[in-house]
Amino acid sequence: MRIVVLSGGIGGAKFLVGVRAQARALGAEVTAVVNVGDDVRMHGLQICPDLDSVMYTLGGAHDRERGWGRVGESWVVKEELAAYGAEPSWFGLGDKDTATHLVRTQMLTAGYPLSQVTAALCTRWQPGITMLPATDDRLETHVVADVEGERKAIHFQEWWVRYRGDVPTHRFVFVGAEAAKPAPGVLDAIAAADVVLVAPSNPVVSIAPILAVAGIREAVAGGPAPVIGVSPIIGDSPIRGMADKCLATVDVEVSAAGVGALYGPRSAGGILDGWLVDSSDATTEVPGVPTRAVPLWMSSEEATAQMVKDALSLAGVA
Amino acid sequence: MRIVVLSGGIGGAKFLVGVRAQARALGAEVTAVVNVGDDVRMHGLQICPDLDSVMYTLGGAHDRERGWGRVGESWVVKEELAAYGAEPSWFGLGDKDTATHLVRTQMLTAGYPLSQVTAALCTRWQPGITMLPATDDRLETHVVADVEGERKAIHFQEWWVRYRGDVPTHRFVFVGAEAAKPAPGVLDAIAAADVVLVAPSNPVVSIAPILAVAGIREAVAGGPAPVIGVSPIIGDSPIRGMADKCLATVDVEVSAAGVGALYGPRSAGGILDGWLVDSSDATTEVPGVPTRAVPLWMSSEEATAQMVKDALSLAGVA
Repeated sequence: MRIVVLSGGIGGAKFLVGVRAQARALGAEVTAVVNVGDDVRMHGLQICPDLDSVMYTLGGAHDRERGWGRVGESWVVKEELAAYGAEPSWFGLGDKDTATHLVRTQMLTAGYPLSQVTAALCTRWQPGITMLPATDDRLETHVVADVEGERKAIHFQEWWVRYRGDVPTHRFVFVGAEAAKPAPGVLDAIAAADVVLVAPSNPVVSIAPILAVAGIREAVAGGPAPVIGVSPIIGDSPIRGMADKCLATVDVEVSAAGVGALYGPRSAGGILDGWLVDSSDATTEVPGVPTRAVPLWMSSEEATAQMVKDALSLAGVA
Repeated sequence: MRIVVLSGGIGGAKFLVGVRAQARALGAEVTAVVNVGDDVRMHGLQICPDLDSVMYTLGGAHDRERGWGRVGESWVVKEELAAYGAEPSWFGLGDKDTATHLVRTQMLTAGYPLSQVTAALCTRWQPGITMLPATDDRLETHVVADVEGERKAIHFQEWWVRYRGDVPTHRFVFVGAEAAKPAPGVLDAIAAADVVLVAPSNPVVSIAPILAVAGIREAVAGGPAPVIGVSPIIGDSPIRGMADKCLATVDVEVSAAGVGALYGPRSAGGILDGWLVDSSDATTEVPGVPTRAVPLWMSSEEATAQMVKDALSLAGVA
């Protein structure tokens, strides 16, 4: 069996741990197509937060308590950059992380595409799945927001990390998406998949930038594999992160029903064949999309693997 | 009074601490023209060992015990780079240092010349002197040596750090020197100087690459200011570093007389008007160059300031 997962960073990474566990049980292969809209160049380093979250988490090197970055991280480089007055000072650039970015940036500068760089980094981390960036081309999520009295487009990271999304926000723009091509392997993986899972990642700024890459939405929506989404919302709150702020910006209700309808049924131009919601949201209805309610708290690898099992069952593939 | 010092890294930095002290006592201004031949790009970072040694030392942030780099340095980035298998693994890239290199590299990438980048970094370190790279252009010291059975040209850092100079060595090549122009301010400082001091730095790989920049040797040798050199050799050993290995390569005797003759008298195409040697080398004779013997161990700021006082006295300017 071949499983493709569309994934953002931290939540997606946690979900992928369960996918990997279930895939091992089934002898299945997993390909994650990971958002790159959060990617940003800071201090001359190319930083790929979602790819790194997935890589570190599947490599067992993530910080479980902080929720992002490397376990045992230190912050000397960041403090020193601040002592030089180097901006931005609000970004959490850890020392271990810095080495990852140095290796990546040097390879990119040497001409390797991000997909090959990611594969090279993964020789260390052995994530046990194939990790593909959605695109090797530049695609950055920018946010049109009112910042310090002025409406401007800022990088997603600035909106997210510096302002905690706590500024009047008008829209998200996926800069470069129209010209971006899917990274090598992405369309083939989707075409060859037995099932496509949409991780419980932020639908607006993690999944949407993947689907915005020219050809990916069409490949998913028009492909042979059933597509099952997992709700990132339980009750009226995101499982983690700031999906609520993002959903509000695009006028979507913060609920499993709201996000399910945002993705929409394949029969009506959407991408979903099935929508997995939490047991507490059992009454959720998404027109045109079969739903199933199961426990969605990713409290352990086993619990997450059970979610994946339920998703595969809803897809009718296991 | 205006004092110009030609300087390499660690030994030159230590000497400059004494120059600064003596200059303060005299109300004099100091400009250091610093070697860039050791500069190297590693892991995508532009590293300037001599400029950094001078900057950190005059800024009071150097590691006195290790002799190079930052006090309280940590090595997370280096260990992580090694874990990725990133080469070179033999270079001592500290975490604090990494931040310096990130700031520098980003400014260089943005188009600022090294001299302006150095000035920007110095706003943090407040060295109390004007620090100028010998050139803003690319100038790298390469070493023709027999390495693992093959004669090849390796970067000076590789020869120095990786092989400790312990390979059959044939010559030093200052790549780019002929096309390099003196950094802004260098020729003006030399022309306006009341005295030029040659720090007790490595004559072959620290001072020679400075003089190799088109126009600098001519400015020093033909300028109005007396030029006083301070011997980097006491007895038959370098004060620090590997000047002995470098001198052997260029067939110069490892002695105060040998180095004095290498620099040579201005009257015969050299650069020296006076040569300061250690008390233990009082019998040193350099044809055409007046010598004076004084204690040359830079055991304290005061001892070094006294050396500088002696050099200024030999120059007849104080």
